[in-house]
Amino acid sequence: MRIVKLTEKEKNNILENLLKRSPNQYSKFEDTVNDIIENVRANKDKALFEYTEKFDGVKITEETFKVTDEEIEEAYTKVDERLIEIIRKALVNIRDYHQKQVRYSWFDSKTDGTLLGQKITPLARVGVYVPGGKAVYPSSVLMNIVPAKVAGVEKIVMTTPPGKDGKVYPITLVAAHEAGVDEIYKVGGAQAVAALAFGTESIKKVDKIVGPGNIFVALAKKAVYGHVSIDSIAGPSEILVLADETANPRYVAADLLSQAEHDEMASAILVTTSEELAKKVSEEVDGFVKVLSRKEIIQKSLDSYGYILVANDMKEAIDTANEIASEHLEIVTKNPFDTMTRIKNAGAIFLGEYSSEPLGDYFAGPNHVLPTNGTAKFFSPLSVDDFIKKSSIISYSEEALKLIHTDIEDFAKAEKLTAHANSIAVRFEQK
Amino acid sequence: MRIVKLTEKEKNNILENLLKRSPNQYSKFEDTVNDIIENVRANKDKALFEYTEKFDGVKITEETFKVTDEEIEEAYTKVDERLIEIIRKALVNIRDYHQKQVRYSWFDSKTDGTLLGQKITPLARVGVYVPGGKAVYPSSVLMNIVPAKVAGVEKIVMTTPPGKDGKVYPITLVAAHEAGVDEIYKVGGAQAVAALAFGTESIKKVDKIVGPGNIFVALAKKAVYGHVSIDSIAGPSEILVLADETANPRYVAADLLSQAEHDEMASAILVTTSEELAKKVSEEVDGFVKVLSRKEIIQKSLDSYGYILVANDMKEAIDTANEIASEHLEIVTKNPFDTMTRIKNAGAIFLGEYSSEPLGDYFAGPNHVLPTNGTAKFFSPLSVDDFIKKSSIISYSEEALKLIHTDIEDFAKAEKLTAHANSIAVRFEQK
Repeated sequence: MRIVKLTEKEKNNILENLLKRSPNQYSKFEDTVNDIIENVRANKDKALFEYTEKFDGVKITEETFKVTDEEIEEAYTKVDERLIEIIRKALVNIRDYHQKQVRYSWFDSKTDGTLLGQKITPLARVGVYVPGGKAVYPSSVLMNIVPAKVAGVEKIVMTTPPGKDGKVYPITLVAAHEAGVDEIYKVGGAQAVAALAFGTESIKKVDKIVGPGNIFVALAKKAVYGHVSIDSIAGPSEILVLADETANPRYVAADLLSQAEHDEMASAILVTTSEELAKKVSEEVDGFVKVLSRKEIIQKSLDSYGYILVANDMKEAIDTANEIASEHLEIVTKNPFDTMTRIKNAGAIFLGEYSSEPLGDYFAGPNHVLPTNGTAKFFSPLSVDDFIKKSSIISYSEEALKLIHTDIEDFAKAEKLTAHANSIAVRFEQK
Repeated sequence: MRIVKLTEKEKNNILENLLKRSPNQYSKFEDTVNDIIENVRANKDKALFEYTEKFDGVKITEETFKVTDEEIEEAYTKVDERLIEIIRKALVNIRDYHQKQVRYSWFDSKTDGTLLGQKITPLARVGVYVPGGKAVYPSSVLMNIVPAKVAGVEKIVMTTPPGKDGKVYPITLVAAHEAGVDEIYKVGGAQAVAALAFGTESIKKVDKIVGPGNIFVALAKKAVYGHVSIDSIAGPSEILVLADETANPRYVAADLLSQAEHDEMASAILVTTSEELAKKVSEEVDGFVKVLSRKEIIQKSLDSYGYILVANDMKEAIDTANEIASEHLEIVTKNPFDTMTRIKNAGAIFLGEYSSEPLGDYFAGPNHVLPTNGTAKFFSPLSVDDFIKKSSIISYSEEALKLIHTDIEDFAKAEKLTAHANSIAVRFEQK
């Protein structure tokens, strides 16, 4: 793995290189995606079935479109019992963490009869997109469904592309069922996003669409944003390990590779104050790559977006971590909690040498759907907050309004909004 | 004002008619907006000054681009002192309400050495767009800046188009200064959004862009979403009054008109169970329209998007309110609090006959930046939450990880992610 001495110039080059991975760069597919969306809006289910035949190579009909209870039961017979048991254990942790995110409606009242508040209401219908294709990630199914469920969403509708046999992977069905999904439809790609956003004969329009997908799915989500809400636009995975000389190079190397294996666009970066650690991690990485099953992907990812950066001091290292704003940040320093207080931008922060990143992917409880590509500067992990909306509550008594009615009228008049002023004034006109 | 007997068919027609007002319908301007964005990314300040000359008819240079302290001082001399006093009173209420929205980082630890948490960090830089043109709304300046300020945003950067004299309206400057803005630049339109999203020589890239604007501004915000965060895409204003026979028709009529006067696309709807109230409100509306200064706008708005709907019962009336999901909802019924508990979708809810909508626009404290066009089904009022982001915190001890390490390894292997499994396994290999 390349070792680079951290300079301002190097840092800027790296930041620019990493942004090449952004789904924002793929606008060339926008027209294709818009065509698919328009077609689904116009032809609904018919368009979906045509795309599924074209892209997934399987004929789906009204009768086979929705996953049946029998299909789910069958799926259970095909999944290893040990895996079901692990999924159930993980679910306990994931539910437990998200439960702590639940917020309450509140109000604050005064004795003059005024009351102000904020009402929390769960979204009514949510669409969860689950990718098909090369990789099957039941953990991702859990992470997208649980926060919606905990928020109190009435209907959770999942879509996922069927295999050539017209079935959904058994483990996907089991994970979705365990997490509490309400309906599952066999459709993927931009067409699935369009169906969820605008509705078809079979799929009722949802309020929000979440879940990862390929570039077509990402662009479709961006295109329908505003018609519905979306989570964020997911980019390739990332890890940044912030380490000093106290870190175990073997653990650091293994953790870097855990993200590098996701895909060739994934990024694994070590920022360290220790030149010795840099060298040792690089050696350990070389040793691991040889024996890991996804070595081709890992090597390409490391060559394109992997760096070991040696910083002059911890301040420079922390500043760099904040500028990169990584999806996953591991802090392996003498005092990880102290270092953590200086972190501004990161999706999830893993503290100390036993908080390996995959612990968060599967088991600890916090969501593994995290902001990528520097968007941790302004986006947050998927959470219960994503599945509720707020309404302000305003209640004034006659007495309270009377005290301030001329202020409001004068403010409205200053904005030349006389009907605004009038609506307050009529309440105090001579009767 | 037209009175319509509520039926399923009428309701669907109305819902469809209202959605015509959505900024999502204006994709024909997308190419123009994309060209502006590309030009600003390439030519930065130079492009901004060219657009300002073209669209706003005034030559701005590096020297006059940023509003100076002297310009702000000068603005104070031109604004009515009474208005400044009202702004300060409103600010107290707005700050006070938003202060209640502040959330804390939290953690939960167990005695086996595990700790999970959620860290709250304010966004570093926020851009606030303030429209120029026909209308000057200092209240909107307050509502966009205060939540960012309360959240702890380090730098709040405002952009607004200059007038032909190269100046910003004095009241806009005063409101921005009172609310605590850090920098103000004289640029508007899609070019201002592009500058905030990507940065120029003068304007540093921000993390999030908020604030209302015309269709070009709305489309530009949608286009840069993902590069930065945005609030939501604002549509025309709306009010829905839910009333029974106990409501005062004169107040209801005045409140409907307060939103109808905003623009010709605004929508004012009364849903009532009382035919008598319907008739009386219609008469009162006619009386008011004659004498109000913005009567042309009001009449067009009412003709296109104004309705008095008579429902068979309160349940039907409430269901309709939930389906329309109005930006502003007034509840004027026998027991407004009871009715409120049945409301799922609304930006802001005003309870009882003295909670006239303009009270919320200017003074009560809750934000007046609210979801429009049915998006209250999934979007929320602008709040302190919009100016923070969250990071998950995960810290496991060796002891805690040891208990579950084989579960994680097996889960990772089931997803065929062997480097994930390896990163956990190395921590428990025989040393």
